[in-house]
Amino acid sequence: MRIPTIDDVRAAAERINGIVLRTPLLRSEALDAALGAKAFVKAENLQRGGAFKMRGATNAIAALAPDVRARGVIAFSSGNHAIAVSKAAKLFGIKATIVMPSDAPRIKLETTRSLGAKVVTYDRVNESREEIGAKIAAETGSSLIKPFDDPNVISGQGTVGLEIGEEISPDIVLVQASGGGLSTGVSLALPKAEVWAVEPEGHDDIRRSLATGSIQRNAPGVRSICDGLLTEQMGEITFAIARDRFAGAVAVSDDEVRRAMRFAFRHLKLVLEPSGAAALAAALAGKVALAGETIAIVASGGNVDEETFVEALRSQ
Amino acid sequence: MRIPTIDDVRAAAERINGIVLRTPLLRSEALDAALGAKAFVKAENLQRGGAFKMRGATNAIAALAPDVRARGVIAFSSGNHAIAVSKAAKLFGIKATIVMPSDAPRIKLETTRSLGAKVVTYDRVNESREEIGAKIAAETGSSLIKPFDDPNVISGQGTVGLEIGEEISPDIVLVQASGGGLSTGVSLALPKAEVWAVEPEGHDDIRRSLATGSIQRNAPGVRSICDGLLTEQMGEITFAIARDRFAGAVAVSDDEVRRAMRFAFRHLKLVLEPSGAAALAAALAGKVALAGETIAIVASGGNVDEETFVEALRSQ
Repeated sequence: MRIPTIDDVRAAAERINGIVLRTPLLRSEALDAALGAKAFVKAENLQRGGAFKMRGATNAIAALAPDVRARGVIAFSSGNHAIAVSKAAKLFGIKATIVMPSDAPRIKLETTRSLGAKVVTYDRVNESREEIGAKIAAETGSSLIKPFDDPNVISGQGTVGLEIGEEISPDIVLVQASGGGLSTGVSLALPKAEVWAVEPEGHDDIRRSLATGSIQRNAPGVRSICDGLLTEQMGEITFAIARDRFAGAVAVSDDEVRRAMRFAFRHLKLVLEPSGAAALAAALAGKVALAGETIAIVASGGNVDEETFVEALRSQ
Repeated sequence: MRIPTIDDVRAAAERINGIVLRTPLLRSEALDAALGAKAFVKAENLQRGGAFKMRGATNAIAALAPDVRARGVIAFSSGNHAIAVSKAAKLFGIKATIVMPSDAPRIKLETTRSLGAKVVTYDRVNESREEIGAKIAAETGSSLIKPFDDPNVISGQGTVGLEIGEEISPDIVLVQASGGGLSTGVSLALPKAEVWAVEPEGHDDIRRSLATGSIQRNAPGVRSICDGLLTEQMGEITFAIARDRFAGAVAVSDDEVRRAMRFAFRHLKLVLEPSGAAALAAALAGKVALAGETIAIVASGGNVDEETFVEALRSQ
């Protein structure tokens, strides 16, 4: 197991430069007033694809040896990782195969296909995506791009932190966490900052993993408005970094997330998806002591449908 | 009548540096695809106060001689200009008096007062705001800050264009226009670009003024979703610049503006107010030939209430 370092994050920043956007670090008087702190919001919702995921996928593909890369890439995902890998593969002019359950939402199958990826579906009950993926990899020589537990994916997501550190020296960083690719990458890039992971309420495996010193799983079937943060458990690499670097983990409720989405609408003029508003929600709900500090809040994405957004604007 | 030049805009940029934010110039693959052009969006909705207005007000106040400035400022406005002048005055630690009709929306009276400004109300039917303002100015020595027809206000708004020009060399710029402070300032700052003003449908005084060669007025009572763009007519200075610099003026309907607000929600992840989405609406509705060009679209503000935003998301 290779644990990436800040040098890997720096190398990632060079690799993805010009492909991935440098997103702005925003200020807001209303946010400063609400938190009693000097707050900066890293607006990854303004990233290509509407979320940070392109950073890791692009870095992982860019880091492959050219002859290996030419044989294409594979990913297992029905969500944003599939889209990020497909988009990054397209930019490199290589083939992407995405293995998805046959009952995945049709919109996700179509979006992935529209990006030029080959979608291979499998029966969730009777087939194993790992076996299907291994078979395709053996036949084609394609490389598997994991969603988070990969040094290059972690380093790519970590460029979010590197960009923050080039503009400010935050005392505290709040970042949403699930598999831990983004949050651990950011913690590597900002070694002097106190990094807090933010999880959905009832899905607090990171808090429990840090408390027990071993990787804990979430109970199946837990629901949250943060649909992008429902990974079963951290990876071995991400947990090793988290144990070393995280100050802790806090959880936010669906209502706290909706209030943060509304705050972002009113005061930041940003569209945030629920997962992308989780760190802001933790700050606004006072889950971490922030008064007087310089803080960075990662707003990780903005891919939200109209209905969910309107519901957030109308919630109390 | 003093017509400002690009040097005035450069001087404004130095004066307001550190007070006003440098806003990001955003890219979007979806927007490029929709327009068949290389498009950049200047996100002034992310400006302090949620709109570009702080630039002009700050520059006008900063440009006053210190002893004059110390005697305070006056503005006539019931809208964003009042708020911008109040905020800027507060930053300089001077007194602002805002003259508002007594029947102005209570929320605007309260917002202005909450920023530390003194609000003087007048009866729209029986009193003249000019007389009231002149009396206050004579008594206190305060300086009047006009909303648009002032070289320093125009130069301040023009810093939007200067920031665009520091990053790209646009062939075409689309910018919303009403009194003309922002649009003419931007045209001064980008002398090589073809600048198009965007007006609300039925409120096309700029198009008619350019066509006839003299300042035209709008018919009273015209309604538009773009509540920030309903000025009666341009000023003498802004018209002089527009006549010299504008490529033309185009108009957008309420439905075109709502579609642009929805596009910004879906693809740019930005909250835009109707007036702030007017230039984007003109681009998306094909009002100006853009294919193959490098274009800059000014998204001027994001101060929109929930109801208006939800209505835009749900419109077809």
